[in-house]
Order: sequence, then structure tokens, then C-alpha cells
Amino acid sequence: MPAQPNLFQKQYLLTAGPTPLPPAVSQVMAEPILYHRAPAFIEVYSRVLERLPRVFQSANQVLCFTASGTGAMESAVSNLVRPGQAAVVASCGKFGERWAELCDAFGADTTHLAFEWGEKVDPARLDAAMGEITTPPRAVFTTQSETSTGVLNDVRALNEVARRHGAILVVDAISSLGAADLPQDEWGIDVVVSGSQKSLMCPPGLGFASVSERALELAATDRSGRYYLDWAKAAKGQAEEPPNSAFTPAVTLFRALDVALEMILGEGLDGVFARHALLARAARAGIEAAGLERFGPDDDDANVVTAARLPNELDGAKVPTLMRERYGVTIAGGQGRLKGKIARIAHCGYFGAFDIVVALSALEMALADLGHELERGAAVGAAQRVFAEAGVNPVALA
Amino acid sequence: MPAQPNLFQKQYLLTAGPTPLPPAVSQVMAEPILYHRAPAFIEVYSRVLERLPRVFQSANQVLCFTASGTGAMESAVSNLVRPGQAAVVASCGKFGERWAELCDAFGADTTHLAFEWGEKVDPARLDAAMGEITTPPRAVFTTQSETSTGVLNDVRALNEVARRHGAILVVDAISSLGAADLPQDEWGIDVVVSGSQKSLMCPPGLGFASVSERALELAATDRSGRYYLDWAKAAKGQAEEPPNSAFTPAVTLFRALDVALEMILGEGLDGVFARHALLARAARAGIEAAGLERFGPDDDDANVVTAARLPNELDGAKVPTLMRERYGVTIAGGQGRLKGKIARIAHCGYFGAFDIVVALSALEMALADLGHELERGAAVGAAQRVFAEAGVNPVALA
Repeated sequence: MPAQPNLFQKQYLLTAGPTPLPPAVSQVMAEPILYHRAPAFIEVYSRVLERLPRVFQSANQVLCFTASGTGAMESAVSNLVRPGQAAVVASCGKFGERWAELCDAFGADTTHLAFEWGEKVDPARLDAAMGEITTPPRAVFTTQSETSTGVLNDVRALNEVARRHGAILVVDAISSLGAADLPQDEWGIDVVVSGSQKSLMCPPGLGFASVSERALELAATDRSGRYYLDWAKAAKGQAEEPPNSAFTPAVTLFRALDVALEMILGEGLDGVFARHALLARAARAGIEAAGLERFGPDDDDANVVTAARLPNELDGAKVPTLMRERYGVTIAGGQGRLKGKIARIAHCGYFGAFDIVVALSALEMALADLGHELERGAAVGAAQRVFAEAGVNPVALA
Repeated sequence: MPAQPNLFQKQYLLTAGPTPLPPAVSQVMAEPILYHRAPAFIEVYSRVLERLPRVFQSANQVLCFTASGTGAMESAVSNLVRPGQAAVVASCGKFGERWAELCDAFGADTTHLAFEWGEKVDPARLDAAMGEITTPPRAVFTTQSETSTGVLNDVRALNEVARRHGAILVVDAISSLGAADLPQDEWGIDVVVSGSQKSLMCPPGLGFASVSERALELAATDRSGRYYLDWAKAAKGQAEEPPNSAFTPAVTLFRALDVALEMILGEGLDGVFARHALLARAARAGIEAAGLERFGPDDDDANVVTAARLPNELDGAKVPTLMRERYGVTIAGGQGRLKGKIARIAHCGYFGAFDIVVALSALEMALADLGHELERGAAVGAAQRVFAEAGVNPVALA
């Protein structure tokens, strides 16, 4: 008897971070390592520092830290928040809540406006809440794309509210930078933090903070309680000629980022955003055709992650497990209080049409295995129609 | 006329961090990236967590941070030092002085016992200095291998002094872990921090802290003022079944470390230390034969870096520049107040006999170019004699 053929040994990573890497990004990390003070690395480092602001759509120097995205978030809190001072957090999911944990850890008098997971942060309610605070906070912390739910917040409106109350806005754009539009300078946002492992198509390990002059000045009034993530120290080293990282930088990750930025700027930010928007639309059409409800608000701006509510009658935690173990397709389920309740289809970074086809197809197969009634192929067909109606193929990345 | 042949286009990275990577370590980073919560990564992560304590020669859980080595140093300061409390720093170079900067940044009442660059920290003087402090400090911070000078401190003796005064010792073993012996548990040292990019043969980007139960308890008494580098948070995640990094870990670097640890433990720590000691002896013999004086104390324990004092009549800053630009061999010169005064030959990590041959040969060539009188090849000959007299070849790494 012939052995059972293994149709599903190929592995597909389709999560919202770490996201899949372009082959050229992977390959450059295998090259001989560079000394961080040698000209060959300084060339890479200088180019990355010159290009990063274009992705942030800002004239700011973008400060780089060898750290997870949370390290970049912590840099904003430890540089801006003083023990005992007021800080405001506006959250609607796991990552927004991290801002509150950070503010508490650094001793802030934190006002935490926590919206339901799956809702957006409401600018009007933020406005009202800030009106009631007696000591004006220096900063408001929020999230552009809340990866735990897929929700995209209107950070432009939130910035207007914060500014009206004399505070600066700090935006976590860890998963959204390079997927959803965020023209930092045009919108007048003082601080945007991000990380390497989402839409920037790199491995995890680099965190970024694009910080306005005003925010740097606020931070400079008191430099105690931080060192490794100190903005002034990072800014000083990066401004030197040639630029000089304050601490040994993660050289393999900078080389990866150099290649990834070349690809992103080659595609063009507008092209990148249009590609993400189209993939998101296809994902939404697919989950609807699979008979699933979308989780989150009914709008079209969630470019980063599409969350599907899993049928109540299923053991939802089994869906991502089956997809991975039986079919080799790794997507994320729900985190924390959403565990077992949602499946998240990512489309941030190095994603193209057939990634959505694979994710939707594996989702259909797992749902069918669990007894959910659906028409096999309908989700994929719906996604195909979105691509066809767009009239163009998404721009090839490489 | 034929073109000038380029004999020196091949590049040799011979610095004390980033250090050269074994090919297998480089290659694994080019493999498709893994999702940090997927079984394939958890297998790698679990193996790394199981093996790291063997390199620290400790039963402690080794806490891992996605950060430069300085991030691991900061974790020790931010977890142990409270604003206004006493802390002692015993330094003898640039990296030891970083402990004092960190303690100051975190508001400590810092007593900084700063020895000359090139000297060792003297346990008797530390003893005397601690006897004069009225409020007993919780911790003493020092360095095992001071990479800026090559000096190796007697951290066993320093630990005895610290303990006699009721303080715990925190050792920066960033460059020495995996090169010089440091049996943490046998010597009773409470905290040892290290990084990935030196003797552990990996790229920069991972920091480690091996922390005793006593030090974890001291840290747990007050958890304010830190978050990303909080020991309790890291320990809790790593102790889960399966282990779960508190924040997205640098997955490519963990895969690199997994391969490197396999190599280090395969060679055996004793073999690793003996190889480093022999390379150091050859480097010392070589610089003497080149007519250079050794920089630092005249002893045999400096396994990590050998520093040579450059002749006063030369423009010493030109030596590493010529070595790199003319001959393709990158070594480090002096840092800070030692700029232009020393050349540093590294032998930490993935180094073998011919790395010393190349470094010494390029040093001879650069010195000769600058007009220093020497017998070409004498330094290399001296190193060869050391290898021959040792009677065995160093154990091959891969």
C-alpha cells in the first residue's frame, strides 16, 4: 500500500507579526556579519536612517532601538511620563492596554479610557474624559491598528482632541506603519512608534520612535529613570557624522531593514497602502462568503488584520490549530478574552493575493472539518472577484 | 599594462563584537521566519532556555531580552537600584563606567571606584571603599572582561568582598561569557549579564541576565520604573509551559543562538576556554615579537582581547585604519581616552589559530607601512610556536 501522501508539508506563515519575509530580506542576513563601526555597516545604517522618515512621512529623525516594539513604546513612556504626573491612555484592545501597564509601571497618574475590544476609540468620549481631568496630562497614548481585534483608530481625530487639551499624542503604529496611511507631519502627530516585524517586512528586534522637536524638548526637561531607551542619547548618536548608534546595533536586522525599505519605497507608499486595502477587502469578502461574521466595526479602513467571529457552536480555539497542524497554514486566533472567539487573517507586509487565497482556503477546510456548513471555495471565489473587480493585479513586490 | 591585482579584497572581521559568525549560524537566519507562538519556534526557544544556563554554569533560569548587551545591564540596574539608594560601581574602563552612568540615570546614590584604564579592579581597595560607606549598598556592579582594555577582573574575589559587606555582585560578562571561566553558582555570584554578539558567536540583539533567587526577591520588593526589562515579567513568561516570551522575541537571533549553543556545548566549555587561552597566549607572543608592549597587567588570564600599546612615534589611529582599508582586516583600536594609543586583537567566539595569524600579519604590515621597524613575519612565527608547543591543534568548531 502506498504511503499516505503528505500534501500539506509546505508551511505558510500568515500572521500579523512576525510576518513573512521577502527572500532578499532573509538572504542578506546570511551574509558575513559587519562590524558596526566599519564603513560597510555605516553605509547601510546611514541609508536606513535616511529612508525611515519617508515611511513615517515625517521630517523627524527616526530614533532606532534594538528592542521589540514594546521597547519603542516604553521609550515614549519613560521619556515623557514622570512619576506622579497625569497621563491618558485611550485603548480598545490588548495592545492599547499595554500603554496603561507601561504608564502605571513608570508611576504615572493614569487615566485609562478603555473601549470594548472590537470597538474603536471614540474621539468625542476622549474629549469628554479629558475635559474632566483637573491636571492636564502631557501626553495621550493610543494605537493606530489594534492588532488584537483588527480595528483601526482615527488617530488624526484623536490627535486633534489631544492637542485641544494641550497634550501631545503618542501613536503605536507597530503593525500599521507601512500598511495604513499615517502622514505624521501632515496630521501634526508628535510621536509615532513602530517595530520591524510587521508591515516593514523584517524580523522582530528593531523598535522605532519618530519624535517631534516639541516632544524631544518635553523629554529633555528630566532625563532620569532611563538610559538604554533615552531619546536624547539615541538622537545624539544618530545625528553624528557618520551616524553612530549609542549601543551596538542589531546589524543583521539593519541589513534586513535596508533591503525591505528599498522594496517599500520602490513600490511607493501609495502603492503599498492600495495593495493592503485591496487585500483587506478580499479578506472581508472571503469571510462573509464563508458564512462568518466580521468582528469589529463595519467599515473599510482596517488594512492590517481582518478578524472573523467564529461560530458559537464550534470550539473556536481549534480553528487556528487545525489550520496549522493539519494544513500547514499559521494564522492567529484570538488573544486574551477573545481566545477561541475569533480568527485573524493578516495582510500586513509582504502579502499578496495568493496569501489571502491560501488563508481563506485553509480557513474553509478547517471550518468544514469542524462541521461548519459552507460551500467549499466560496470564500476564495469572493476574494478572486475583489481582485478581478479592482481591474489591476496588486503591484508585485519583488 | 595589466591592472594592479587586488590581493586584499577579502574581508576579515576580527573585532571583539560583533564577532565573526560560524557559517551555520549565518545560514539559519536565512530560513523562512517562524511565528513566535508556533511549535517550530517554541522548540527552538525551549532548547535555548534549557542550554543557556549550562553556559552560565548556573541553575538559574537565564532571562532573555531582545536588546543590546546594555539592555541586559540596564535590567540589572533598573531591577535592583531604587532612587536615592546606595550603589557601588567598581570600574577600570569604558564598559565599567557605563555601570556608573546607568546607576546615575536610575537615581542611585552611586559610589564609583574608578581604576585607571588598563588596571584591574583591586579587591582590597573595593573592600576599603565599602567599609567607608555609611548606608550599605544593595549591589556592587563590575565587569569581568573590560573589552576597552583587555583586562580581566577577578570577579570571584570581588564577589567575596561584596558579600562580606552584605551586597550582591552584578557582573558584566558581555564579552567574556563563553571565553573566560565564570562558574556563577560555584563562585556564588548573584547576577551575571551577557550579550549575544561576543563569545556566543551570534549577531547583536539579545541580552541575558542570569539572576539568583535572592536577587529576584530583592527586585520583587519594588517593581516600579521598569516594564520591558522587568525580571519578574521575563521570568514568568519563560517559566510557562511551553515557555512564552513576554514580548515578541527576535526569532532570527534565537535561531542563530540555538545553532551557536549546540556548537559551544559540543566543543565543551573546557575546550572552549582552553582554545581562548591558547589564542590569547599566541596573540601576546605575537605582539611582543612585533616589538610592541602589551597594554594592561602582565598576567595570563585575559582570554577575550589582547591590547598592544602602539609606539609613541606613530600616529596610532592610522594602524586599524590601514589594516582595514589597505588589507581588509578589521580590528579595533582604542576607544575614548585610548584612541590612537592601542590596537586590540580579539579572540572571543568563533576564532581559531589562523585568525590570530591574519590579525598579527596585517598588524605587522600596517606597522611597517608606517615606518615602524620590525622583522616581517616574526609576530606570526611567535604565534606559530605557541600553537606548536601546545602540542595539539585547537578543537575545530565546525
